[in-house]
Amino acid sequence: MTDQYTSSASQPQISSSDVNGTKVYSPTGDKLGHIDELMIDKQSGKVAYAVMGFGGFLGMGEDHHPIPWSKLRYDTELDGYVTDITKDQLEGAPVRNDNWRSDRQWEEGYFTYYGAAPYWV
Amino acid sequence: MTDQYTSSASQPQISSSDVNGTKVYSPTGDKLGHIDELMIDKQSGKVAYAVMGFGGFLGMGEDHHPIPWSKLRYDTELDGYVTDITKDQLEGAPVRNDNWRSDRQWEEGYFTYYGAAPYWV
Repeated sequence: MTDQYTSSASQPQISSSDVNGTKVYSPTGDKLGHIDELMIDKQSGKVAYAVMGFGGFLGMGEDHHPIPWSKLRYDTELDGYVTDITKDQLEGAPVRNDNWRSDRQWEEGYFTYYGAAPYWV
Repeated sequence: MTDQYTSSASQPQISSSDVNGTKVYSPTGDKLGHIDELMIDKQSGKVAYAVMGFGGFLGMGEDHHPIPWSKLRYDTELDGYVTDITKDQLEGAPVRNDNWRSDRQWEEGYFTYYGAAPYWV
């Protein structure tokens, strides 16, 4: 990688390589977790959802949840994402089955749970 | 990372972590290069463009070019992206100034060069 792609808060784009580790905050500024990776819809090139890791310690016992991208707002001052999703919502989120990533019906229910429009609409 | 996020050709989404290294082919099946990273528009969550590395040897002398995402079509059989951009087009692409990543006018010219709609439209 060359330096020209180095990200900064003032850049309008962020590298997929740099998203890893970006913190996620509640509207009141509490840290909820961090982005581990983005899942990108191959056909449309839209970010389908972000995978947020939270809890645990040094990577052990950490839980991962898909978060609809539309529920994340990038805040340049915090240099992180702010979401209106609460901890209670995270903990009560629909259980994932083995096939959830290609189960559109499950995905639709999941996005509905968070009050987000499905990414393929 | 947990195994549940492992990507495969049959999955409708791809992890931003797995895009790194995905090969790019010409319509005739020749390898043009590989994706190094995706640049994501922070505000909209759209993939703005992919950064393709090509040429060079073992990472030395490699050149990097932004490729409009709309010019990349994922091919499940090749397990890579196919583009109609030619080598000549790549070599004749507009030179990047120091500020190209936040220079919307430059970006517009660049996307126009490749016959692609700007990602912010």
